[in-house]
Amino acid sequence: MKKYEQVAQTVSEQIAQGIYKTGDRLPSIRHLSEQMGFSISTIQEAYMLLEQRGITEVRPKSGHFVTQQQKRLLDLPVMPEYSAKPKETSTWAKVFHVLYQGENADVLFLGRAVPNLSVGTLKPLQRSLATLTRKGELRGLSYDYIFGCDELRRQITRLAVDSGCNLSADEVIITSGCQEALASSLRAITSPGDTVIVDSPSFYGSLQAIEACGLKTLELPTHPERGISLTALELAFEQWPVKACLITPTFNNPLGYTMSDERKARLVGLLNRYDVPLIEDDIYGDLSYEMPRPRTVKSFDTEGRVILCSSFSKSLAPGLRVGWVAPGRYASSVMHMKYISSMSSATLPQLAVADFIARGGYDRHLKKMRGIYKRGRDYLLEWITRYFPEGTRVSHPEGGYLLWVELPKKVDSMQLTTRAMERGVGIAPGELFSSTGKFTHHIRLNYADCPNAKMERGVKMLGELVAEMDSSG
Amino acid sequence: MKKYEQVAQTVSEQIAQGIYKTGDRLPSIRHLSEQMGFSISTIQEAYMLLEQRGITEVRPKSGHFVTQQQKRLLDLPVMPEYSAKPKETSTWAKVFHVLYQGENADVLFLGRAVPNLSVGTLKPLQRSLATLTRKGELRGLSYDYIFGCDELRRQITRLAVDSGCNLSADEVIITSGCQEALASSLRAITSPGDTVIVDSPSFYGSLQAIEACGLKTLELPTHPERGISLTALELAFEQWPVKACLITPTFNNPLGYTMSDERKARLVGLLNRYDVPLIEDDIYGDLSYEMPRPRTVKSFDTEGRVILCSSFSKSLAPGLRVGWVAPGRYASSVMHMKYISSMSSATLPQLAVADFIARGGYDRHLKKMRGIYKRGRDYLLEWITRYFPEGTRVSHPEGGYLLWVELPKKVDSMQLTTRAMERGVGIAPGELFSSTGKFTHHIRLNYADCPNAKMERGVKMLGELVAEMDSSG
Ligand SMILES: Cc1ncc(COP(=O)(O)O)c(C=O)c1O
Ligand SMILES: Cc1ncc(COP(=O)(O)O)c(C=O)c1O
Repeated sequence: MKKYEQVAQTVSEQIAQGIYKTGDRLPSIRHLSEQMGFSISTIQEAYMLLEQRGITEVRPKSGHFVTQQQKRLLDLPVMPEYSAKPKETSTWAKVFHVLYQGENADVLFLGRAVPNLSVGTLKPLQRSLATLTRKGELRGLSYDYIFGCDELRRQITRLAVDSGCNLSADEVIITSGCQEALASSLRAITSPGDTVIVDSPSFYGSLQAIEACGLKTLELPTHPERGISLTALELAFEQWPVKACLITPTFNNPLGYTMSDERKARLVGLLNRYDVPLIEDDIYGDLSYEMPRPRTVKSFDTEGRVILCSSFSKSLAPGLRVGWVAPGRYASSVMHMKYISSMSSATLPQLAVADFIARGGYDRHLKKMRGIYKRGRDYLLEWITRYFPEGTRVSHPEGGYLLWVELPKKVDSMQLTTRAMERGVGIAPGELFSSTGKFTHHIRLNYADCPNAKMERGVKMLGELVAEMDSSG
Repeated sequence: MKKYEQVAQTVSEQIAQGIYKTGDRLPSIRHLSEQMGFSISTIQEAYMLLEQRGITEVRPKSGHFVTQQQKRLLDLPVMPEYSAKPKETSTWAKVFHVLYQGENADVLFLGRAVPNLSVGTLKPLQRSLATLTRKGELRGLSYDYIFGCDELRRQITRLAVDSGCNLSADEVIITSGCQEALASSLRAITSPGDTVIVDSPSFYGSLQAIEACGLKTLELPTHPERGISLTALELAFEQWPVKACLITPTFNNPLGYTMSDERKARLVGLLNRYDVPLIEDDIYGDLSYEMPRPRTVKSFDTEGRVILCSSFSKSLAPGLRVGWVAPGRYASSVMHMKYISSMSSATLPQLAVADFIARGGYDRHLKKMRGIYKRGRDYLLEWITRYFPEGTRVSHPEGGYLLWVELPKKVDSMQLTTRAMERGVGIAPGELFSSTGKFTHHIRLNYADCPNAKMERGVKMLGELVAEMDSSG
């Protein structure tokens, strides 16, 4: 055990013993350094570790405080070790293998990030599509304006108000899904060889985009409830020539965390101080179980440094491929990259989504989905508690429909993926969510369609497989 | 006048005087060098110039022959001077300005590459869209397979037979339009700083993609009927570390040329010899006025070095954003680049296009469009002859719906574009089609909707503007 780990352990034992209680301020770094006889930097590292583990939190200009430890059915995942060096890697082969397996086959997909599509509140969207087509208007067949349909851009600015954002339609560019928004943004603000900071675990589509653009990834410690460590972020800004951050701060995929407003505001402060742009992926933001939905980081940004990316893939339907980006001060290069990547986006789905929102269909649909997904989460948690072996840990998302599961260390999740697929069940192995081979005993599950009997059987089978792999050899 | 230009002039005068007739073999290079007292390389350059001007053609292992000079209403455009050095430039500002102007306004667009969308043979496609939507199937709402819908990929391989290609559905990846196919292909086979050869003039979307990927463009002399100079191509392969070619060899946008089968086959020979991949843009290939449609370069490729890109944007409707790529030996990296750029493409339009083709709607539609576009071309040519001043030259496409117009040298086409827009008419200025500022007195016009009275008025107004600018100051 390293010196700072010793210190961290001592302090967390003191917390466990009740010497410091929830909300208490810990001794200052200088004080503890004198008291324990370790250097200032050792104590700093120890405090950072405690913060990363969610045991403490930093309040600017006040110090380190003991956080509230919540009691849950299952524990939260723990955070792996991080090396602080940007890495240039390629994990496409692995991702492709998982994406491709089971295509066309009759598989129960528990790992894909597809929303529940069989609810009645989506019907009016299909009606909009059909009506717009039947009207035989030429507009749906023609190239769209390069920024996207005005109707839709206006509706998006209306929705953005709910996340605390004042956007004008001019500030929004329609894309082919959130992925195109992310990739175009990345390309607009980086050059090959640059370093990009991500939360960790991180959506594999973003990681793939970073890798494929020839960029280096710097994965930062990320707490399963509070999100990316701002202490680590600031340190990285000091140490590395960071060109961009790409983070999903609200109902994170896959980890489920949501940064608090206070931390979002602090994040913006750091971005401004170090002049680093943030690509904020808000794709699950509207799927909050509580109203009002959480604010975006963008809503705290007064200097145009946050590029807000989203789409209707999770809140409505991914097959539409309707996404958008509000690129702030990087508008002209993001527009350029979007244009060369696919020119304008498909017109008809844009018009249909705009129509659907304008008629109130989107709000009705979200209201419905909030209840469905919250219930789905509780079912899946319940099943995992019942069917998975001891030592399993899970995330506790308050929005979206994805669960991050940490399995007992002995269980290799790539192997689990292969064996589950042989039994007709698809899952997403944790390794897809890291560029550096982390999360080898983690999986992502989708509870959008929970509860149903087939899913329960699938989860049970998975749990048995995991137990078997855990106890074997 | 340079020495080689003198030689070329002498020879072309001899041809004009009938000393050499159509089909005659010119003296060998060595022979002429001795006869005229110029170096071998001067004669070589002279012969290259004659070939570029379309006065002669090369038959492999036989020599240089006088080509048939066709009589036309209006002359073909002449070819500008080329510098043989790859250039790294950015012309986005110019392109954006032209693309953006007139958005939302009530403008007669004579310059955009949009097909005729108001024909009855498209109606069944809209019916397919509406039916698929009404059936309320979830598939149209869900993420598609990463390679695209199987139904559509199968139909595409069926169509490819008409262009001489034997593809299997596995070899086809669906993209969001041809632009995404082009950009993903470029990214798959190049790295920033590499050199890419293009025909010239060249579609601005390709040029923008090349520029935005940080690549250097090498524009090669391109004949308005026979296409890119193979002599220049070989020379470039010898001289520069060329990483890829990007060419539209059939019904070229904007120049209208179609390479002959014999030249397409020779092109493949060169690609193989120098191990350079070709990105073949075949987006107008199906819009041939004669049946069978011309073969693709890909159909001569037995080594997988040709990446064939296309879409239904020109043959059906661009708003669908349904394109595809057959990437040959570069399949896995093209798939990777497509995936990170936008994941899968919109599902519903793919299913609708597949359904439309399967029911014979595509063939019926093409048959109809062939007649419409051919007639449109003849009308536009007629109007230009009537309304444009002397010295105007035009292309003679045998497919597609785009005309390339060379105006008298004094007419600045950027200025013309601005002045025409003030009068409610949009055109595409020639400069968009070069990365090096060529084609300053050229414009591209679209005859997809010819003849109609509004268009004729627009063309007349344009002709008058041109005449005025030609005779002023
Ligand atoms: C966090 C995140 N961002 C982006 C995407 C891609 O979204 P889209 O389908 O809109 O391109 C996904 C899809 O899984 C996602 O989970
Ligand atoms: C030659 C050429 N290639 C590609 C494209 C882009 O096609 P798509 O709309 O299918 O992306 C165009 C459109 O103008 C074109 O003319």
